[in-house]
Amino acid sequence: MSQTEGPVHEDATTEPPAGRVRIEVGELCVPMEEVHLTTGERLRLYDTAGPQGFTADQGLPKRRADWIAARAGDPVPTQLWYARQGRITEEMRFIAIREGVTPEFVRDEVARGRAVIPANIKHPELEPMIIGRNFLVKVNANIGNSAVHSSLEEEVDKLRWSVRWGADTVMDLSTGNRINETREAILRSAPVPIGTVPIYQALERVKGQVEKLDIELFLDVLAEQAEQGVDYFTIHAGVRLHHVPMTAKRVTGIVSRGGSIMAKWCLSHHKESFLYTNFDRICDLMRKYDVTFSLGDGLRPGCIADANDEAQFAELHTLGELTKIAWERDCQVMIEGPGHVPLHLIQENMDEQLKHCHEAPFYTLGPLITDFCPGYDHIASAMGAVLIGSMGCAMLCYVTPKEHLGLPDREDVKQGLMAYKIAAHGADLAKGHPGAQDRDNLLSQARFDFRWEDQFNLALDPAVAREYHDATLPAPAAKSAHFCSMCGPRFCSMEITQQLREMASEMGKDAERVADAGMAEKSQEFKEKGSVIYTS
Amino acid sequence: MSQTEGPVHEDATTEPPAGRVRIEVGELCVPMEEVHLTTGERLRLYDTAGPQGFTADQGLPKRRADWIAARAGDPVPTQLWYARQGRITEEMRFIAIREGVTPEFVRDEVARGRAVIPANIKHPELEPMIIGRNFLVKVNANIGNSAVHSSLEEEVDKLRWSVRWGADTVMDLSTGNRINETREAILRSAPVPIGTVPIYQALERVKGQVEKLDIELFLDVLAEQAEQGVDYFTIHAGVRLHHVPMTAKRVTGIVSRGGSIMAKWCLSHHKESFLYTNFDRICDLMRKYDVTFSLGDGLRPGCIADANDEAQFAELHTLGELTKIAWERDCQVMIEGPGHVPLHLIQENMDEQLKHCHEAPFYTLGPLITDFCPGYDHIASAMGAVLIGSMGCAMLCYVTPKEHLGLPDREDVKQGLMAYKIAAHGADLAKGHPGAQDRDNLLSQARFDFRWEDQFNLALDPAVAREYHDATLPAPAAKSAHFCSMCGPRFCSMEITQQLREMASEMGKDAERVADAGMAEKSQEFKEKGSVIYTS
Repeated sequence: MSQTEGPVHEDATTEPPAGRVRIEVGELCVPMEEVHLTTGERLRLYDTAGPQGFTADQGLPKRRADWIAARAGDPVPTQLWYARQGRITEEMRFIAIREGVTPEFVRDEVARGRAVIPANIKHPELEPMIIGRNFLVKVNANIGNSAVHSSLEEEVDKLRWSVRWGADTVMDLSTGNRINETREAILRSAPVPIGTVPIYQALERVKGQVEKLDIELFLDVLAEQAEQGVDYFTIHAGVRLHHVPMTAKRVTGIVSRGGSIMAKWCLSHHKESFLYTNFDRICDLMRKYDVTFSLGDGLRPGCIADANDEAQFAELHTLGELTKIAWERDCQVMIEGPGHVPLHLIQENMDEQLKHCHEAPFYTLGPLITDFCPGYDHIASAMGAVLIGSMGCAMLCYVTPKEHLGLPDREDVKQGLMAYKIAAHGADLAKGHPGAQDRDNLLSQARFDFRWEDQFNLALDPAVAREYHDATLPAPAAKSAHFCSMCGPRFCSMEITQQLREMASEMGKDAERVADAGMAEKSQEFKEKGSVIYTS
Repeated sequence: MSQTEGPVHEDATTEPPAGRVRIEVGELCVPMEEVHLTTGERLRLYDTAGPQGFTADQGLPKRRADWIAARAGDPVPTQLWYARQGRITEEMRFIAIREGVTPEFVRDEVARGRAVIPANIKHPELEPMIIGRNFLVKVNANIGNSAVHSSLEEEVDKLRWSVRWGADTVMDLSTGNRINETREAILRSAPVPIGTVPIYQALERVKGQVEKLDIELFLDVLAEQAEQGVDYFTIHAGVRLHHVPMTAKRVTGIVSRGGSIMAKWCLSHHKESFLYTNFDRICDLMRKYDVTFSLGDGLRPGCIADANDEAQFAELHTLGELTKIAWERDCQVMIEGPGHVPLHLIQENMDEQLKHCHEAPFYTLGPLITDFCPGYDHIASAMGAVLIGSMGCAMLCYVTPKEHLGLPDREDVKQGLMAYKIAAHGADLAKGHPGAQDRDNLLSQARFDFRWEDQFNLALDPAVAREYHDATLPAPAAKSAHFCSMCGPRFCSMEITQQLREMASEMGKDAERVADAGMAEKSQEFKEKGSVIYTS
């Protein structure tokens, strides 16, 4: 992002909007935002932004340090191992409060492999979260200095900017200079799980010569990153030698960077992938830190024409096979998915993933439902994302408007996150997630009651909602007006409906008189406040 | 829109982007845009923008005048009547070329009532189009001076701006002054069907006193608007007296303006709706001009909590009943739909509409899949739109970012249309519409071949695609670079894939040498062009 961005131009530190306060819930101090409505009602919102007011130098408080220390003597530190032992960790209790479920339910879902808690024991700053289809749908944002230069402060700012807009996890895709220092700074300031794609750093080590990659080098990179506290690794161990020819007739070949690297390695050596043949060693390393596998979809389709093809599903079957190996070794696993898939082929993706990957959580990039709108791919992909989310996909990797074109700037990151928070919430509603609809109901009730401030405060993006409203009706009186600028008072259906209800309740007295008086009164009231926006 | 907009600040007249040309196809001169690729390939795109270079005073050429005049002696002028007679009109032949189907197929779908051709015989400037689920999914944009003042030129500019961004039909929702002159100016400059909601003007005539509305007044308004050439009328004849109590327990009551007006009328008089009881007279008037019915969903849900409720479906059943009456009188009919519907309840909307409205085309507003994101409702609603479009909804009424908040400006109109063109195209792909995927395939092939100019020219919005690319790689040489700024050359999966393919074809010779030489060569080539964006 650094190239277009220049210096940090807006403070990523977030204060909740007026009408919302930050609270901490329970003895585990689970962070939430609470919306205080003018009716006295309150609504608690899931909060990803993390503790505020800490510099990149300081890092965040280490809230997990004691939890982790107390478990130091256990043979395996993974959440999956604890869950299988029937032990409920602090992380699980924390998550139960966030999600509004019981700790036992969290444990059970983790034990079955149907949910993961990416939580490296070297990342004590983490506020634990869960990824699984029986929980709230999550959103990932990608950051990273893929170009020449970026300061540590800039990268930490990108992280904060992402979590401020609701990113549940953040992937650091940095490939530039000072990669270790940057990652260290990010992790120490990250309240959310951080994911990486270690093959990028491995390739840097061999100066871009793919053929020179090997398992020892790769394990070294994994160990370094795990030691820093990375919570999940994308590992493209599903790209096997015999899959590569399956991509030969594709329109866009292999579009995953990691996938193309591994395919080239396999073909160069005409050997099976070293990630595949050494998968047990990778598991052993990741188990030691409880780094979660995000099994990469190196052969995901890069265009509509290539969706759901032989190569894609062959790799998916391999990922299912690897899932079992990782589970045997008490490692947590999620499965990455496409990519570019037209709407009618999305269901098959979810079905095949559930079937062949044994219900391990699915984590998809979009999918984009068309290729024809570069510049608007956050929208095209959020359409696929909401649908696959409603079908059970557990986490959605965002796409920004700059996808396929260039490096996202801060506004692109925000726009990508807004589209994906809508997709995630839309999927939660469709799945009937308990409580998800409370926010919609409260906002709609506020809309019907013309409580504009409550509408703004309940909104996904209160500042934008307020700004758009004020663009046409800036007067303070308009905030209590019984209409808005769209229709004016005469055509406001909600106002008419309210009159209707009065009429209905007065029926039998003198309905017409009451309704007319009501209209005139409202109209007079508004004129007295000095705002006239409508003349007949 | 006028309040925030001020004078026209950008010319809505559109020249195709470089790499695209306007052409006319066949003896009927069907307008299309043709993309000329650097490979010599060409792709024809559906074009809604209409003839260019005419002022609001001049109006557009009257391309249908002779067609209509030649049919003057026929007893019924509606496309449905002709279709039932087995007659293929010029409008049907024009549409067949636009849609890439046979004229006989167009006739057949119209005859079955499964598609409509909104084409008032008093609107000779129209370029005929069709709305039906076996054709391309269409998009409607709303314009109109709902506020105090707006010049004719401004309204015509809004129309042009909408069709420039792909609006297939435009609804003029004006309620302000000079309403007739404004509508006249719009119609004379409209290459697309124009729809209106005549109850708004009727209510103006009685100075907002709902109770004073009656059928004679309403028919007068219809006659005036039909005489001007309006192609379809939204008529809320499905809101019946006994439906009104069904809305009493809703969170947001009645959110359709027309619906709330009619509900108030019914309750005020405690009588059945005059639109319902006089529906045959309305049909007789509309048949005379071939104005298409858009049977309004006056009881559509205004929030997630109210979706798919008793009131909504009761009205839908009435609309089905009215459809049969209109068809008996040779009137064309489409059915309006919601509104606010969570993802999992969308299918039921489509199923019920098909079942109870006898396959008359469905025309929905969104639906919005959540209420929680005012300011981003174009995205939340486009998600519902693409899904219901893929299920068979024939036309999608756009929603702008200002929905629920204020008056859309030009940028809002554009953003709404972009989101909805994506939804419509995504639905076409999902339905397997013949040829729809050609554009995606050509764009993706261009992407894989690093033909950046072809990508831009094929894109939904070429200017934005080019601008986003150039934000990070402005140098002309970058337009032929074998990578972009996102990953840089080393991590470009597409470049690696192309190397892979070379390797595969060279296998047996000296694969490694070839691949290495290939990489070095590309790298050298790029450096020679003076652009270095990546250093390891």
